[in-house]
Amino acid sequence: MRAENRHYRTIWPAEGAVAVEIIDQTRLPHEFATVRLENLHDAAIAIKNMLVRGAPLIGATAAYGIALAMSAEHSDAALEEACTTLAATRPTAINLRWALARMKALLLPLPPEHRAQAAWQEAAAICDEDVVINRAIGGHGLKLIRDKLEAKGDPVNILTHCNAGWLATVDWGTALAPIYAAFNAGIPVHVWVDETRPRNQGASLTAWELKQHGVPHTVIADNTGGHLMQHGMVDMVIVGTDRTTASGDVCNKIGTYLKALAAFDNQIPFYVALPGPTIDWTLDDGIRDIPIEQREAEEVTQIRGRTAEGEIISVTLTPHGSPAANYAFDVTPARLVTGLITERGVCSASREGLQALYPEQKR
Amino acid sequence: MRAENRHYRTIWPAEGAVAVEIIDQTRLPHEFATVRLENLHDAAIAIKNMLVRGAPLIGATAAYGIALAMSAEHSDAALEEACTTLAATRPTAINLRWALARMKALLLPLPPEHRAQAAWQEAAAICDEDVVINRAIGGHGLKLIRDKLEAKGDPVNILTHCNAGWLATVDWGTALAPIYAAFNAGIPVHVWVDETRPRNQGASLTAWELKQHGVPHTVIADNTGGHLMQHGMVDMVIVGTDRTTASGDVCNKIGTYLKALAAFDNQIPFYVALPGPTIDWTLDDGIRDIPIEQREAEEVTQIRGRTAEGEIISVTLTPHGSPAANYAFDVTPARLVTGLITERGVCSASREGLQALYPEQKR
Repeated sequence: MRAENRHYRTIWPAEGAVAVEIIDQTRLPHEFATVRLENLHDAAIAIKNMLVRGAPLIGATAAYGIALAMSAEHSDAALEEACTTLAATRPTAINLRWALARMKALLLPLPPEHRAQAAWQEAAAICDEDVVINRAIGGHGLKLIRDKLEAKGDPVNILTHCNAGWLATVDWGTALAPIYAAFNAGIPVHVWVDETRPRNQGASLTAWELKQHGVPHTVIADNTGGHLMQHGMVDMVIVGTDRTTASGDVCNKIGTYLKALAAFDNQIPFYVALPGPTIDWTLDDGIRDIPIEQREAEEVTQIRGRTAEGEIISVTLTPHGSPAANYAFDVTPARLVTGLITERGVCSASREGLQALYPEQKR
Repeated sequence: MRAENRHYRTIWPAEGAVAVEIIDQTRLPHEFATVRLENLHDAAIAIKNMLVRGAPLIGATAAYGIALAMSAEHSDAALEEACTTLAATRPTAINLRWALARMKALLLPLPPEHRAQAAWQEAAAICDEDVVINRAIGGHGLKLIRDKLEAKGDPVNILTHCNAGWLATVDWGTALAPIYAAFNAGIPVHVWVDETRPRNQGASLTAWELKQHGVPHTVIADNTGGHLMQHGMVDMVIVGTDRTTASGDVCNKIGTYLKALAAFDNQIPFYVALPGPTIDWTLDDGIRDIPIEQREAEEVTQIRGRTAEGEIISVTLTPHGSPAANYAFDVTPARLVTGLITERGVCSASREGLQALYPEQKR
């Protein structure tokens, strides 16, 4: 998507060098800077310190990390070590493990001297496949937005939570892909951006993305969406998901469930955009079966921002000695979800809906 | 309630001086400091700059502002000017206007030389009446908490939103009064404190109050309550209200509606604590009829906190140029409210329920 007045992906091979470039997302939204990753260590640090984040982008960065490692030393031992190092960066990221397994399965049987070139090609293929999936999600979601435009006139007001935009993927994003597709097609859209405490990915990343691409938007406190829905100021909700069960329950950033309840109470369509690979076909009841990560209390008791002098610092929000809890995700039951927007089309949030789109998963 | 290891009200006459003392709430939760108000101007600034806030406390401070003015100059003109000055400090505060009207109605007919003493007595009476009302709310709410303890064992987990504690009143608070009453009675309670963006009254004021009084509590991002309720970690919700309609719709801090939806979806009792005078008997449909204040975008785009060096500063959270919207309140429809806890007892959130407790309002 557009940033700094040109087109960017979130990760790309450096021109004329054995290196990869990324956008340093820890400096957003206050500063735009790209960083060059020149070896395995650089790639591991970029993932670990969250210069890159978002499941698809973590997977892509890990794949390029393997390519960088193979360019330096293509032995079996080097491949094993690269996989181990990268796998340890973010213990719970599913895409990370998936990308590493895919790279290893491809590279290990090859003659060592062919591994570097094959690794660079495979990493590029992983990126391109992510873009193809997200563009397809955008196309299917675009139809829903166009239908809404025809039904109610402009602009179409869409609420989103957290960041499921191009910064979380290689390009386009998941929840934001339909919005970019609609905007690029000339449909007047306006996005309500939940700031998404405690890590504020909405206020920092989603708002930045939309601003850079020129999409009209307004940042709101997470408390606000229900009021907007009661007063006809939201036409649809589109969010992403970290994990979807075979029955259509959706695990996404904490607070998603509250917005789904409000959308349901006000008869506003609530869509979840997702690539097929994030469906966990082994799970049924999301509330019962999906373990919810608890993160450090400091993400609640402190917040990062820019001072008047332009410095990025953390400030404390709570009284000394008051404990805080930090549950990172919640589960929205399928009954509150109007539809799932996948790369294969839109379906109901149900076992039947998902199996119709992914018949190969029918057991 | 307890603060700094002794009992405080939020406002009290200074000993041996023509002055009033208050807690400077703008410095909480990071610093506890009392401030002496010595004249009309001091009282007006304390309200305007939010050293005191919360409807009942604003009313009490305005009443003492009149007393300070009458001690300096007891003419009709001085009384008029004091009322005008104080009324202009917070344009939409209903208790402010109510307290000023009450003071003026009492003082204007009196011989001017009697006004100062009468004003001090009336201001003290307004404070004491507030304490009596809130203690009664606490007593009625205590029974609900005790019933819950008997039904499920300890601790009783109570979620609250914003600050409806003693800092918003003269003492006890409204939503927190039942919690203090239960704690003081030895019932094991634990409070989930919504931080309450954008102004963070939960993280700064409610957490501070509870910590000072020794009540176990945990601060959470506003997004978290739904997840806690899905997993049996909330036994009841108690919030305050700025305005309640004759049919039981409740206008309270933005985000209250989302918690009410989650409580309803998980069959958790959702109570609203309120003094009778905040019922607006002229209104019926809260969503249609209650105008919602929009405040400055800066409350969303920036936040105040304490630096590592102990300085209190504001930092910016959003990208340069991203607009923000700031709706201060929302309306929770009566159908989602389990009961209203008033100084006269607990009733259903309905015209019938309210009229049974306040028969003098029957029309």
